[in-house]
Amino acid sequence: MSDLKPTKPMSGFIELLPVQQRCFDECARRMQNVLKTAGFTHLDLPSIERAEVLTDKDNWDEIATQMYLFEKGDTKMGLRYDGTIGLARYVAGNINELVFPFRAYQFAKNYRGERPQKGRYREFYQMDLDVMGIGGLSKNYDAEIVATLSRAYESIREFVGGTSVRVGSRPFWNAMFEYLKLDASTSRAAFVLIDKKNKLGNAFAPALNDEIGVTASNEILKVFSDGYQSFLNKYDNFNQAIAELDNFMAGLTAAGIKNAEIDLSVMRGHAYYTGLVFEFFLDKFPELDAVGGGGRYENLVGKFSKTNIIGVGAAVGFSRMIIALLDENQIDLSSFESPIDAAVLVMGQTQVPYAMSVLAQLRDAGIVAVPYLDAEKKFKNQVEFADKIKCKYSIIIGEDEVKDKVLSVKNMATGTQEKMTVAAVISQGMK
Amino acid sequence: MSDLKPTKPMSGFIELLPVQQRCFDECARRMQNVLKTAGFTHLDLPSIERAEVLTDKDNWDEIATQMYLFEKGDTKMGLRYDGTIGLARYVAGNINELVFPFRAYQFAKNYRGERPQKGRYREFYQMDLDVMGIGGLSKNYDAEIVATLSRAYESIREFVGGTSVRVGSRPFWNAMFEYLKLDASTSRAAFVLIDKKNKLGNAFAPALNDEIGVTASNEILKVFSDGYQSFLNKYDNFNQAIAELDNFMAGLTAAGIKNAEIDLSVMRGHAYYTGLVFEFFLDKFPELDAVGGGGRYENLVGKFSKTNIIGVGAAVGFSRMIIALLDENQIDLSSFESPIDAAVLVMGQTQVPYAMSVLAQLRDAGIVAVPYLDAEKKFKNQVEFADKIKCKYSIIIGEDEVKDKVLSVKNMATGTQEKMTVAAVISQGMK
Repeated sequence: MSDLKPTKPMSGFIELLPVQQRCFDECARRMQNVLKTAGFTHLDLPSIERAEVLTDKDNWDEIATQMYLFEKGDTKMGLRYDGTIGLARYVAGNINELVFPFRAYQFAKNYRGERPQKGRYREFYQMDLDVMGIGGLSKNYDAEIVATLSRAYESIREFVGGTSVRVGSRPFWNAMFEYLKLDASTSRAAFVLIDKKNKLGNAFAPALNDEIGVTASNEILKVFSDGYQSFLNKYDNFNQAIAELDNFMAGLTAAGIKNAEIDLSVMRGHAYYTGLVFEFFLDKFPELDAVGGGGRYENLVGKFSKTNIIGVGAAVGFSRMIIALLDENQIDLSSFESPIDAAVLVMGQTQVPYAMSVLAQLRDAGIVAVPYLDAEKKFKNQVEFADKIKCKYSIIIGEDEVKDKVLSVKNMATGTQEKMTVAAVISQGMK
Repeated sequence: MSDLKPTKPMSGFIELLPVQQRCFDECARRMQNVLKTAGFTHLDLPSIERAEVLTDKDNWDEIATQMYLFEKGDTKMGLRYDGTIGLARYVAGNINELVFPFRAYQFAKNYRGERPQKGRYREFYQMDLDVMGIGGLSKNYDAEIVATLSRAYESIREFVGGTSVRVGSRPFWNAMFEYLKLDASTSRAAFVLIDKKNKLGNAFAPALNDEIGVTASNEILKVFSDGYQSFLNKYDNFNQAIAELDNFMAGLTAAGIKNAEIDLSVMRGHAYYTGLVFEFFLDKFPELDAVGGGGRYENLVGKFSKTNIIGVGAAVGFSRMIIALLDENQIDLSSFESPIDAAVLVMGQTQVPYAMSVLAQLRDAGIVAVPYLDAEKKFKNQVEFADKIKCKYSIIIGEDEVKDKVLSVKNMATGTQEKMTVAAVISQGMK
């Protein structure tokens, strides 16, 4: 056996059984459908980009450990690790062809070259959605994109359960750091700790004391004990940030979104966010951490164009979420067990042409029909096949059926069998 | 400007404008839907495979010019170049989990590292479909898979026009080479020339004379002048091959397929075909050459398992076909110009919450609605946006509409405008 090659995919790569794949696909279809109904157009961008597009850094060796990078001829290139970089390039290259505010989504494989660990894959689907404006974009879109994404998660509630969204504010913290007169590096240290607040738990306050001093630390702790509203009228920029949050929540409420709350410990790591930020969590699986998130950014396409593109965007860690739940058997797959309406069983070679005609008619009517065309096999084998594919009906075609131009139709759930014309089967349906 | 990065994708990589992408997606959806109705289950396999899975060769440098190969740690790996190799690995690794005959399709990106040329891409979608049996598979499935694929192409006729399918037979030529007592290398030379017959045109006969001698050559030429049926009863294996072709055509006819013909110059290059082979062509664009094809094979998973898997499969060069037609402006894109039913225009910031509520209700009813939420912008800008996105209706929300809980709905085609409740808009629809 030693000359046989491995059949498992490499570590960090996902491969599903058919029943799991059907569930994955249905969740993907539903979420994308919500985005399409909200007018987001689909973009399908290359998986490979020039290295200079993927990274500004020139420490090739270090980057190469995190990405898939390679050379063709003289060109260094690599597999994309998120949807943002390609989107920026695309928008910059097609500014005159697109209508702004431009609404786009991607549902695509991305790649990370790091060593895989639980819940982190080397190849994974991410769903990105963005609304982008030239030179400006109303903050009303922040609420609209969160409302849309919330509905997208809601569309797969029967599989993943409910979600909640927590909303943070970069402008609020910028106001705070100004108010506290923290210098840039102290502000940065505070930012990093606030980002880790939930992980740190009781260690948060002492760590913050150590880093930025007791006076400043106490003010920041008040945000979480007394609420951010308590900073109203303490400083102009607080008022602006708070008004922005209030407006945002009013927009969500008007859109019927009830699962959002402001949680100023939500920071989102990415440097490019400049406004509100948000993260989605599964109610039943908080241990998965955020399954999606995003925020407002400025100057998206700066690397590619002098046009100033401002936007608000989000990304759903689609594989992360669905694969984790599939791996833990947390999704009821029973509705995906069989997509087959009818097995068409053929008793002998002379009945094959009739079976081919029946198949064509059933399928044209939208009935999912699978034949067993090894007509010389025993009836036992044929029935076994019908059982295994878990079809709703078996259609048996023998000499009599061909002669009488009918089908013997067996309901697999009830066991009842009757002779029917193809037309009758089609008009009755097989659901 | 010299510090700006390139906005075009690399040569050989495809990037579509939104209207083109919508056409591409609709064609992909329709073709896949035909396969699903025929009971093919979707498989989504990794894009990256171990190098030892991708190739048996050890001439790394030479292979690397044709593929995307790279190393991570000690593992050599690369991007898949077709769907077959991953399918073989998957089936071998999941034999006990799958029901045979196993019907599967893939619609996935594949990669070729060669220098790109017209009509050949470095990243492209290919749709693969296969029916596989353990130890055997009735030849009836050959006709079923061609009939299914024929219907899949038919589903996009309004975009690509009609197709025709030409069917060749490896067994017929094996019988011929035995009948003519050609040795292996002469047979191989004849095979290669027959494969090139259409390209060679008048040069075919002299080339064949040169390679295999006039006597043998004359017999082969008779296949094309007198028809393959003229070899009936000349040799037992001819009879079998001819019966197989007749059976196949009878199956197609029964399935309602009228665009198939036997053309024994169809060979398909791949070494792994062992039975009937077939190729699909676009009637309006024969210069594209085959846009799909396949055939019967044996021992699919031999590299991975001792189980003998026999199958019949096909691949559609989906990107090749659709992108070529899009590039030549051969597809009428008018039905994809706008997927937007309604632009929701908001006259001022105080009307934004009402607009958010209206958006949620419209979208929940399946109406594709896009807001213009830069509410402080002039009405002129708002109307311009509605014009540019080519929506069917504009919904205008000002103070009066909020007060009266109605919408001002303008039909963009007729210019008529009326006030309606949201419920009335939904029950009337916006198509």
